[in-house]
Amino acid sequence: MISRPRGTRDFTPEEMDRRDHLLAVLKGTVESFGYGEIGLPAFEHLDLFTLRSGPGIIGQMYNFTDKNGRNLALRPELTASTMRFYVNNLQNRPKPQKLYYFGNCFRYERPQKGRFREFWQFGVEFIGSSTSLALAELIAMAVKLMDRSGLRDFQLNIGYLDILRTVMAKIGLPTSALASALVLIDKKNIEGLEDLLYENGTSAKLVSDILSLLDVTGGIELLEEMEGMERDYPELAVPLERFRKICHWLVIMGIDKFNIDLGVVRGLDYYTGMVFEIEAPMLGAEKQICGGGEYSLVPLFGGREVATSGFALGFDRLLLALENQGYVFRAKRLDLFLVPVSPDDIQYTVGVANSLRTAGLRVDLELRGRNVKKAMKYGNSLGAAYVGIIGENERNRSLVAVKDMNSGEQKSVPEADLVSYLWEGRNSLQT
Amino acid sequence: MISRPRGTRDFTPEEMDRRDHLLAVLKGTVESFGYGEIGLPAFEHLDLFTLRSGPGIIGQMYNFTDKNGRNLALRPELTASTMRFYVNNLQNRPKPQKLYYFGNCFRYERPQKGRFREFWQFGVEFIGSSTSLALAELIAMAVKLMDRSGLRDFQLNIGYLDILRTVMAKIGLPTSALASALVLIDKKNIEGLEDLLYENGTSAKLVSDILSLLDVTGGIELLEEMEGMERDYPELAVPLERFRKICHWLVIMGIDKFNIDLGVVRGLDYYTGMVFEIEAPMLGAEKQICGGGEYSLVPLFGGREVATSGFALGFDRLLLALENQGYVFRAKRLDLFLVPVSPDDIQYTVGVANSLRTAGLRVDLELRGRNVKKAMKYGNSLGAAYVGIIGENERNRSLVAVKDMNSGEQKSVPEADLVSYLWEGRNSLQT
Repeated sequence: MISRPRGTRDFTPEEMDRRDHLLAVLKGTVESFGYGEIGLPAFEHLDLFTLRSGPGIIGQMYNFTDKNGRNLALRPELTASTMRFYVNNLQNRPKPQKLYYFGNCFRYERPQKGRFREFWQFGVEFIGSSTSLALAELIAMAVKLMDRSGLRDFQLNIGYLDILRTVMAKIGLPTSALASALVLIDKKNIEGLEDLLYENGTSAKLVSDILSLLDVTGGIELLEEMEGMERDYPELAVPLERFRKICHWLVIMGIDKFNIDLGVVRGLDYYTGMVFEIEAPMLGAEKQICGGGEYSLVPLFGGREVATSGFALGFDRLLLALENQGYVFRAKRLDLFLVPVSPDDIQYTVGVANSLRTAGLRVDLELRGRNVKKAMKYGNSLGAAYVGIIGENERNRSLVAVKDMNSGEQKSVPEADLVSYLWEGRNSLQT
Repeated sequence: MISRPRGTRDFTPEEMDRRDHLLAVLKGTVESFGYGEIGLPAFEHLDLFTLRSGPGIIGQMYNFTDKNGRNLALRPELTASTMRFYVNNLQNRPKPQKLYYFGNCFRYERPQKGRFREFWQFGVEFIGSSTSLALAELIAMAVKLMDRSGLRDFQLNIGYLDILRTVMAKIGLPTSALASALVLIDKKNIEGLEDLLYENGTSAKLVSDILSLLDVTGGIELLEEMEGMERDYPELAVPLERFRKICHWLVIMGIDKFNIDLGVVRGLDYYTGMVFEIEAPMLGAEKQICGGGEYSLVPLFGGREVATSGFALGFDRLLLALENQGYVFRAKRLDLFLVPVSPDDIQYTVGVANSLRTAGLRVDLELRGRNVKKAMKYGNSLGAAYVGIIGENERNRSLVAVKDMNSGEQKSVPEADLVSYLWEGRNSLQT
């Protein structure tokens, strides 16, 4: 018996139904903000990923050479591909551009709960503006995605890389040490950071200032407190003002419960100013379900400088969080399962099925020639809302004997009334 | 500048909109027949494909080894994966099972018009019954998919492998020669077939009978004519009777325009009885847009013997055929683009946008701080149905000055009436 490759998954109709439902909510929400979907290849030239992240990333990727010797890799995420597409074909379109994607991504990692080698990301990229209003809208939309999906317990953390960077710049850290410092901060390895700073000759006062910046977490009230920092570091005036404006718009948009955390650095070296994360605490170690912010990739890929921001959402993790929360997904149910009593009844049954299907109802019929009892049992196992029996009486009088599988109630319904009868049944079940 | 890999494609929002529309039609149609969607990995163990088709297929695949030395391949189609999933996890569910999938597939072939290295297939598998009624429903559903998608000019060809096989069995051809013969028939290489048959010592009478079988093409009336064949070949009575029953049900289902063609053999060696193809003649060399039939794969993958049939539809080709035909796709339009006249108007504008978005409308607003003229030009470039201007007057009186971008008509709409005003606009535009 051949199994599926390690770290991949098959999805049953019941699982795909839930995924489809969640995806429709996410798509509808970002489309209500004016975003349009794009499609991207499953694999890219390996360069696209190493150019940004260095050759170190190869160890976590599915990379291979094709029959012509091209170095390719299955995409580990979709932002790089979106930026490549933008540089190749979208640069001359009016701006800003609001783009979204949904697709599978691939990482060669040890599989564990909530972490797979093939996983799905839903994400957006916003290209061509970096006003505080636009950035606030981006964060507000991420929060709305969580709300609309039905997730109840989540936490929004917002950081601003330029604040930490401005203070670190004062130390005169070399670029490589700065990158290492950001990685340590992302991993909350404060001791490691202290060691690194002292090794690079940072003064005790500066180390203490940096560590206290990382301690800065709290609500909107922090924005006032941070004004004190501008006295010691006048260079902070500009980034702090912009950060305050973003938060100001967020509050106007109805998002007033967030956590300001200057330690949010997103680990990746292409982020620039504002960064944010959304966590679902119930997921434990894999609690981060959404992350994004401002970044710069277009010039690296040979395009003209342009403001870019976006976020990606872990589709599988969001679904897992909803399932853990006990969210009740509305299932796509079969409306009617039809059972002809004898072979003479099949032709009429086929006609009934055909007209109901054309009307958009989900209808199946006994295709194995089983007797009524066995066929009804099968129809019930499919989760059909109704089972319809068709015998000589029904056939001669253009009826269907319909049984409500919830109540057990049975009723003869004229063929002409069946469409409205079943639609009513579907609507009453779904409210 | 990094380009996308050869034979792959990026899709713009306008293209994804069309793909999304077509996919929704296909999904809705097969779901109306009681089919449920499954999800499958993008890559599989290489064995899954070579076990069925022999190592020859490797030359047309994207195969690679992962970091643990596993031999993997990007899926070239989705039937094998579906059967693997069935054997792994679905065997004990009630039967028949109606499964469908939509996904990208990969073949290392020379790219040309309508032929890509990454392409999309929409397909169904029907597991657990092989009654003539069930097979007729399968074909009828394929035709309904074409009709519902809006395709006007297409041709259904139905064949029946067992008829040719029965006659060929009389010759006593060795299995390998039989396989070669089917490939030659699939490629319509009749001369090559003649040579092969004579080389294997077939009598002139038998060769002539086989060639005349391949000449058998025509409408339902052929079913009567074929009764004559039963006199010479009594073994044909059973397959001919079953073939007639399938066609009988098809006619009852309203499908009476089809071409019976015993030369339809589908080239693949895992097909068994009934086979069919749907062609869109306007596509020329790449005219085949759908193909399927009865096949056997489950025992090969270690599962218990079970009846299986299905078909796959070339999603990209169907879309291309619709585009060539001039089909008008209903586009997802932005309902409203909002323009605040001055910075003081932004807060009210953001509130209006938020309530409209929550009501499910597609709304965008000026996020770059441009003046009214430039912002309106941008809103128009987005294809918005309406542009709404918000100045001091509107803000103070809870209005929006709405301009219909089709008619040029302008109107002050109270904020409270905006949702219904825009929904009416959307519905009138789409009819």
